[in-house]
Amino acid sequence: MDKQERIVEHDAGARAVRRCEELGCDPYSDMRGGLYRPYLGTAHKAAAEALRGWMQGAGMSVRTDAAGTMIGRYEGSSANAPALMIGSHIDSVWNGGFYDGALGVMLGVECVAAFARRGLRLPFALEVVAFGDEEGSRFPLSMLGSRAMAGKAVGDVGQMRDRNGTTLQEAMQGVGLDVGRMGEARRRREDILAYLEAHIEQGPVLEHEDAPLAAVSAIAGIQRFYIRVQGQAGHAGTVPLHMRHDALTAACEMVLGIETLARAHTADFVATVGKIDVHPGAVNVIPGSASLSVEIRSADAACLERAFLQVQDLVQGIAERRSVGWEVRDHQTFAPAPCDGRLVDLLRCGIRAEGMADHVLVSGAGHDAMMMTDWVPTAMLFLRSPGGISHHPDESVIVADVQAAFDVMVNFITHLPEVLDISATQGTVA
Amino acid sequence: MDKQERIVEHDAGARAVRRCEELGCDPYSDMRGGLYRPYLGTAHKAAAEALRGWMQGAGMSVRTDAAGTMIGRYEGSSANAPALMIGSHIDSVWNGGFYDGALGVMLGVECVAAFARRGLRLPFALEVVAFGDEEGSRFPLSMLGSRAMAGKAVGDVGQMRDRNGTTLQEAMQGVGLDVGRMGEARRRREDILAYLEAHIEQGPVLEHEDAPLAAVSAIAGIQRFYIRVQGQAGHAGTVPLHMRHDALTAACEMVLGIETLARAHTADFVATVGKIDVHPGAVNVIPGSASLSVEIRSADAACLERAFLQVQDLVQGIAERRSVGWEVRDHQTFAPAPCDGRLVDLLRCGIRAEGMADHVLVSGAGHDAMMMTDWVPTAMLFLRSPGGISHHPDESVIVADVQAAFDVMVNFITHLPEVLDISATQGTVA
Repeated sequence: MDKQERIVEHDAGARAVRRCEELGCDPYSDMRGGLYRPYLGTAHKAAAEALRGWMQGAGMSVRTDAAGTMIGRYEGSSANAPALMIGSHIDSVWNGGFYDGALGVMLGVECVAAFARRGLRLPFALEVVAFGDEEGSRFPLSMLGSRAMAGKAVGDVGQMRDRNGTTLQEAMQGVGLDVGRMGEARRRREDILAYLEAHIEQGPVLEHEDAPLAAVSAIAGIQRFYIRVQGQAGHAGTVPLHMRHDALTAACEMVLGIETLARAHTADFVATVGKIDVHPGAVNVIPGSASLSVEIRSADAACLERAFLQVQDLVQGIAERRSVGWEVRDHQTFAPAPCDGRLVDLLRCGIRAEGMADHVLVSGAGHDAMMMTDWVPTAMLFLRSPGGISHHPDESVIVADVQAAFDVMVNFITHLPEVLDISATQGTVA
Repeated sequence: MDKQERIVEHDAGARAVRRCEELGCDPYSDMRGGLYRPYLGTAHKAAAEALRGWMQGAGMSVRTDAAGTMIGRYEGSSANAPALMIGSHIDSVWNGGFYDGALGVMLGVECVAAFARRGLRLPFALEVVAFGDEEGSRFPLSMLGSRAMAGKAVGDVGQMRDRNGTTLQEAMQGVGLDVGRMGEARRRREDILAYLEAHIEQGPVLEHEDAPLAAVSAIAGIQRFYIRVQGQAGHAGTVPLHMRHDALTAACEMVLGIETLARAHTADFVATVGKIDVHPGAVNVIPGSASLSVEIRSADAACLERAFLQVQDLVQGIAERRSVGWEVRDHQTFAPAPCDGRLVDLLRCGIRAEGMADHVLVSGAGHDAMMMTDWVPTAMLFLRSPGGISHHPDESVIVADVQAAFDVMVNFITHLPEVLDISATQGTVA
């Protein structure tokens, strides 16, 4: 495809944004006055149906896999060619933003539509995949769809329950799926050429750099665990301070210790305590026990391991000094996930072709791409997040940035055969 | 009553303890596997009916006042003589102990029974009062029964709701009471001679002193308020630490600051953060807002006021440094309540008569007696709490201590005319 043949679609970015907004409210949200689209809920089902229409309109055949992921396929110049998968997720956190996940899916639809509208067939197929469970906002395990597709073990998850007590098994049955057959979502490695995910940055770095886009070099690893502190409940008026075993004051010292420890690490390292619960939780009772969720993230696996040990030492020291019990439990690890160097370079090339500086970032947020990097060549494109705001109703995007991302993605698709070996029958781009 | 006539009831203490234990489970508790007896609940109603039987068996006529307080009366040597009220409460905190409140009521019943069994009439009436709402464990206001009896304003409380959404008005209707007529619970000052409350210490001091009993010099005042911290929610993976406005880390610094501040005050000063809530409270979201309950207690009103200002300064300093918003709200004050010096001395005299050291303590816990001290001469007798444990299922008493408390109370009743002016027609003690 030479310069004259360059695909120009001036309204692709605006249309992708509009569709994300359209999915931001009833019937595509399961909360009033905000967006909540949990895995397998009513809103998820409605959003998937809207997406099916858009995919079909863009020239794709559409199916849903055994994990509830919606897959649209646009064949290449030969039948059954391996596919470039362009994907992201359509579930959301509670009271989340419109663009987190959904934007990457809508951009994928726009890319396919642009090729289909011109009758262009590539030497590989294009697929747009919309995962249903990236956030883990309903059941206590995230990225089920991408895990299943990449053939990663998901464990015995059928009995996991949401906050209403519904099991995953029941939720899947409700939409005609069978948790026992989730393994069938696994794709054959040889059918997948590469994976591309466009996503909002969800952080303030690109805005600070005045840059619309960045190529992602790696997705930070995550360690997630709970700290439980066991003190001694007692009457808030009668136990002198020096005789207390207050679980909350111990927990607060741990929260601040973790913050201090995190600040001593490298710039891409972050630590967050997002949940705290105390028991019994009454105005006039000294807290008897407390529980904290802790999450640490870094692109450096050794750094994560070291920090996890440091947190345990910290917790033990505070607990011993305050004579309270402690335990660290429900430990969960996502290893750091490096993107494919050739594809990172291809994205940078496309960003420069837009006349922009080719920033490269580590993604602090987890993405479905994490499940792909050790399986197929993977690339991620970040879009600037105004105010760095995400997981919040104020989350937004700039339409011009989305349009530029579309152009970079089309460029990526067009030039992909130049950097990856297309072993299937070669078609022509025209 | 001379030495030969001294009332001896060897099993009074054991019987009072046994009755508290009997009230510790179904149908006298509204939770399984523990004690919860909230104001106007099913368990409260059942416990009051059991108490009615015990009061009648002890020779009292029984009625329930307009606030749901059960009152048993044993007439003096002349009709309508002013009464020594012996009281405490029969409600409990969630998963509380058997003796908190109930023991004082059962000891009152034993005292009356001892006089009635001998046909002894005093120059004043004896009343045993069982308040239904000392703890405030159902509705967000405590000591409603004693407030109403002492004629203190309770405000427009009918629309207060419990955790199930039931209003106080509805709860009162359910037991045949009318919130609009609660003022009728007010007693005429001239009908009350004095108020005596026996209660477990609920703290570790007497055990530490190896002392079974103490006279209470004053009940500590309480200031209760909520601190609300407003930060900025954000994605836990993508916002660098130095750009966060984490409401929880700010709140934790406040909790520890309050602890440090409290330790710098006098020995009877305590501060407790019993509740903490963060929003949105997800593993992977930086907390956007946090709320803390704070309670400070001291027998010294000036000390309380100073500490409240210190806490506000502390909160403001932390909030400004961390660029988060703050507010202090729902402020509630109970002034310190000094007991009557003559009655304190009378109790000390009775304790010494048992061959024990006459300890005098400030009560760190609030009690219905707080509502009485500025209205009628008030005395409180503390019983040792093993392990200092209260508001907890492990709460206990030593039967010998309870027996000694009974003896001290009988002594108090017998010698009361020697320290208070009995203006009503004098009867004879025999």
